[in-house]
Amino acid sequence: MATENTSTYASGYVQPEVDVRALTKVLDGEYAEIRDLVRTNLVTYASVLEEAEELGVDAFRERVRELVVDMAATGQTGMGFPSEYGGGGDIGASIAAFETLAFGDLSVLVKVGVQFGLFGGAILHLGTERHHEAYLPDLITGQLMGCFAMTETGHGSNVQALGTLARYDAARQEFVITTDGDGARKDYIGNAARHAELAVVFAQLEVGGKSEGVHAFVVPVRMGGEVAPGVRIEDDGRKMGLNGVDNGRIWFDGVRVPREALLNRFADVTTEGVYESSIENPDRRFFTMLGTLVQGRVSVGGAGVNAAKVALVIATKYAARRRQFEAASDAEEQLLLDYGLHQRRLLPLIARTYALHFAQDVVRTQLHEVFSGIKDDAPARRRLESRAAGTKALGTWHATRVVQECGGAGYLSVNRFAALKADSDIFTTFEGDNHVLLQLVAKGLLTHYASEFEDLDQLGMVRYVTNLAVETVIEKTSAHKLLERVRDLLPGGDEWDQEAGLLDSEYQLAMLRYREEHMLAGVARRLKRGVDQKRNPGVVFSQVQDHVIAVAHAHVERLVLEAFVDKVRALPDGGNRVALGLLCDLFALSTIEADRAWFMEHGRLTVQRSKAISREVNDLCRKVRPLAVGLVDAWGVPPEMLRAPDLVG
Amino acid sequence: MATENTSTYASGYVQPEVDVRALTKVLDGEYAEIRDLVRTNLVTYASVLEEAEELGVDAFRERVRELVVDMAATGQTGMGFPSEYGGGGDIGASIAAFETLAFGDLSVLVKVGVQFGLFGGAILHLGTERHHEAYLPDLITGQLMGCFAMTETGHGSNVQALGTLARYDAARQEFVITTDGDGARKDYIGNAARHAELAVVFAQLEVGGKSEGVHAFVVPVRMGGEVAPGVRIEDDGRKMGLNGVDNGRIWFDGVRVPREALLNRFADVTTEGVYESSIENPDRRFFTMLGTLVQGRVSVGGAGVNAAKVALVIATKYAARRRQFEAASDAEEQLLLDYGLHQRRLLPLIARTYALHFAQDVVRTQLHEVFSGIKDDAPARRRLESRAAGTKALGTWHATRVVQECGGAGYLSVNRFAALKADSDIFTTFEGDNHVLLQLVAKGLLTHYASEFEDLDQLGMVRYVTNLAVETVIEKTSAHKLLERVRDLLPGGDEWDQEAGLLDSEYQLAMLRYREEHMLAGVARRLKRGVDQKRNPGVVFSQVQDHVIAVAHAHVERLVLEAFVDKVRALPDGGNRVALGLLCDLFALSTIEADRAWFMEHGRLTVQRSKAISREVNDLCRKVRPLAVGLVDAWGVPPEMLRAPDLVG
Repeated sequence: MATENTSTYASGYVQPEVDVRALTKVLDGEYAEIRDLVRTNLVTYASVLEEAEELGVDAFRERVRELVVDMAATGQTGMGFPSEYGGGGDIGASIAAFETLAFGDLSVLVKVGVQFGLFGGAILHLGTERHHEAYLPDLITGQLMGCFAMTETGHGSNVQALGTLARYDAARQEFVITTDGDGARKDYIGNAARHAELAVVFAQLEVGGKSEGVHAFVVPVRMGGEVAPGVRIEDDGRKMGLNGVDNGRIWFDGVRVPREALLNRFADVTTEGVYESSIENPDRRFFTMLGTLVQGRVSVGGAGVNAAKVALVIATKYAARRRQFEAASDAEEQLLLDYGLHQRRLLPLIARTYALHFAQDVVRTQLHEVFSGIKDDAPARRRLESRAAGTKALGTWHATRVVQECGGAGYLSVNRFAALKADSDIFTTFEGDNHVLLQLVAKGLLTHYASEFEDLDQLGMVRYVTNLAVETVIEKTSAHKLLERVRDLLPGGDEWDQEAGLLDSEYQLAMLRYREEHMLAGVARRLKRGVDQKRNPGVVFSQVQDHVIAVAHAHVERLVLEAFVDKVRALPDGGNRVALGLLCDLFALSTIEADRAWFMEHGRLTVQRSKAISREVNDLCRKVRPLAVGLVDAWGVPPEMLRAPDLVG
Repeated sequence: MATENTSTYASGYVQPEVDVRALTKVLDGEYAEIRDLVRTNLVTYASVLEEAEELGVDAFRERVRELVVDMAATGQTGMGFPSEYGGGGDIGASIAAFETLAFGDLSVLVKVGVQFGLFGGAILHLGTERHHEAYLPDLITGQLMGCFAMTETGHGSNVQALGTLARYDAARQEFVITTDGDGARKDYIGNAARHAELAVVFAQLEVGGKSEGVHAFVVPVRMGGEVAPGVRIEDDGRKMGLNGVDNGRIWFDGVRVPREALLNRFADVTTEGVYESSIENPDRRFFTMLGTLVQGRVSVGGAGVNAAKVALVIATKYAARRRQFEAASDAEEQLLLDYGLHQRRLLPLIARTYALHFAQDVVRTQLHEVFSGIKDDAPARRRLESRAAGTKALGTWHATRVVQECGGAGYLSVNRFAALKADSDIFTTFEGDNHVLLQLVAKGLLTHYASEFEDLDQLGMVRYVTNLAVETVIEKTSAHKLLERVRDLLPGGDEWDQEAGLLDSEYQLAMLRYREEHMLAGVARRLKRGVDQKRNPGVVFSQVQDHVIAVAHAHVERLVLEAFVDKVRALPDGGNRVALGLLCDLFALSTIEADRAWFMEHGRLTVQRSKAISREVNDLCRKVRPLAVGLVDAWGVPPEMLRAPDLVG
């Protein structure tokens, strides 16, 4: 180990230097201005980090509300709304603002997400002018608080099966909203327990006795601070974290709202009591409606990555000043960050954070282009939805893992790990459970193979393959062609990857592409085989579920690496480019290393080469180590957000 | 995938049934009585689980103190003390009681650990009759609360380098205790912020200007509820969890205590002011003193395993009743536990919990035998210390992982995941940071190879290899012999493992033994090579640190598997034996699977065989699935400890 690595230094490797300010510019990109506004606001309201501990639940909820309203006044939270209603008219900037807000207290972040993203987003995207005029101006200032009542106790991820009913009463031109059994109570609804006056309620629409599927309605849940008649609200109580957000349960007992309460952008009930929609297919209609809410996923994924940054800044600065016994000499103990094991724990996480940051840039740009009409067509929406699901899953899992890995020394509340841990875990679950999201990604991929499943319709298999997936162009790919595609992934032919340089990004990309394609073909074959054997499709799907998740994960990791490689290639020469190149290699090779068993099992890594990759990862860690503090400083996390005086002081 | 597995059913496999009550007897073993007493107490005081949320920090600390005193009155917490002072005189039972207490609120557990394990244990094991008579009766009832002031801000794991001074003033026959600089303040000390009247203070003893190393002293820190003169105490404040324990910082400013305050079992200062000790070597003396405190590690490891059980019971019962969409049929959604992915996440964790439970039995028995004088010699103490360190590390990491994996659905405080997560994380750090503990294990292993390091003394390498390791018989093993040993590990010769049955426990054990021996030899070689190249020993060690941790981890996993295999073999025929056999296979094969890249890289797994192991793990999961609820019920976690009414109700 030692020998191979020292040779690198001997062969003329020049350690780059990081220009922190220039790197921050690269990272902040086109949204530097709004990010700096949020940074300023975070510092102004930094006391909220202490208040999160010191105040009781009730007082803290009020404090967070106050602060959200104050921040709204700076324009920070309304960037995504049209300027005619007082918004900033820039969807990309609104996501960037939300991401940056994740450096601070996460209750504030989630309250902002609930009010402006979920509630405001539903009014904006599912409603029409009458709703915009009635609600947008006041909700953008935070004067009118609302909640997004989708999730039910009995139905977490399966929104199409919600139990709440909205029956149309043609005589009175009203909808009657009813909670149909306790499983249909709305649950975990942010803003519900205290502050919401309105709720956007997702319910099964029934018109003239016919069920038309899930639609959204604006329902007053409080009037003058009192819970509205027919509405029952229960407080979800103290949670593990995010106690500044007032989550609650809501029941509706025949609550009547006017016909105009239906958010009618995609479907309406006419004054004559006729249901009509511009989208004929009910499934397509449903997924089109849901699709407009994709910004929530993009936001949460980016927020996860930024929460991870806070933990990594603290951990890196701590490791760069904390000495530990097991010293190099008796006189002075060695710095934590000089230990191989510690480098191995920390530096690949920094590399992955950079990778996910640049992948987030890509999905944010896609979102901006679709929702600003710059590039809005069906394939672009499909790509966006799949990518948002995958990036959200990887970004929030990363946050959980980073906080876990870095939090060892940080048990006291005075540094931020306790709060980060308590507050960020749920990110993997809300805005779509990560496992469910990856299934969505996989289903999108699988529809490419749908031609192999001609006889599946009768068996119901197609339901599992395409149910959640948005429509996809079906490629006529035969099994034979598939194999060729897999081979085509290796630019230098079948054996090329056995000789290619480990630091060749084409090699790294080819490895991740190969893994993805091979896994995808495997899942398709397994599903088909199960169906050919006339086995219960549900059982078959259940048995390949881990493969489904794995292929989606592999797909998203490949996209993340592509984003990182593209970014590095586009940078001007200099220390920052060299440094990011090292990080990109570290991300790619540690990702391959983590799955090296799979690559060996599938003939793409020899034992020798697998070991060489591990040595290269060690070597990259040693090269990145002197850059570590600069690399985390470049994220521009305000020092006030770190707390942890004993650790980083 | 499907084909291979269905064949198992076709070939006459008979699904066993679990006899839950009989299995509980097996698990509770000889300590069923004390475990049942603790279960009863847990149910009696079950309200503490709500109080942990509802009460403020101050009130909750008082409530926990009250409860600990009440439990003490039942005899539960004093089992480890001699009966002449009011204890139970059964060290094994005291550990079993502590383990069982981990089903409940973990603040209560840790308060018990601080008071009776750390404080009481130090008085008992480091003190002599005068200390026993003065303190044991009152501390056993909980009337006299104390703390264990070892950790300092500047020195977490490196106790030999503590900064607190205890200078002997021969004229007045007193020790003068002084905090030497802010890094020497005692920190994170449980019971310090509020309740402790006494502290056992670890400090550098100086007699006649000569430093004699770290010794322990009984120092009053409060008198009549007021902090004693010369003592300063600061509250560590709110923590992420365990807020029922009053952790604090302590400074000493020339605090004088009489000569008799030295806990003098292993060393004393005579009335004439002469330092004397029955153990000449200062290092050996120090490690002998520390060694008497090993029960803390044994306790925490067992507690970690039992905290994991609580999370697994909730998660398993939830998965066995919760239906999810992606259903087998339109009519009824499929149970979570019927999903392959869910089985893969949950069932190997249940298997590993069983494995760690039986490994805990072994280390508890060793502890009992050593400390009851049944089998107390130097090699037995060495074995105990190494095993306690390793079992603690694996048990507490397991708890963190299980709580993380199972906690997805459990975000609200009303079920126990929030508390479990917040309270149990620190288990991996206290009573010895897990990474440091595994280094200790590894050093014990490495001393076997010390003969290969003849020339290391001058270079200081031996310091890294043996510093923390307890004395060990040095085996005269040459590198050549080592290789033979590795080969000897495969009972049927060099290629035997390529053909052996995957479910043959001899095969499974041979794989884990091979991994351990090979890694150990590798670390030894790497250290030697670095030293031969005259490189800085600290740097060399830093670069092999991950290998050092890995070998220790491999060693402990092998011990855990051995304990499980032994247990299954000793069971009478019947459903429980078959069920535990399945679990044991699942533990062994999922452990090998998790490290299959290593086995492939080291020629012990072919690609085909590696894939076969994954298929076998899937198959075992499907066989264990119908037994899952019975297997977790057998742990005997009182239902009141589960809370989570919505999840398991």
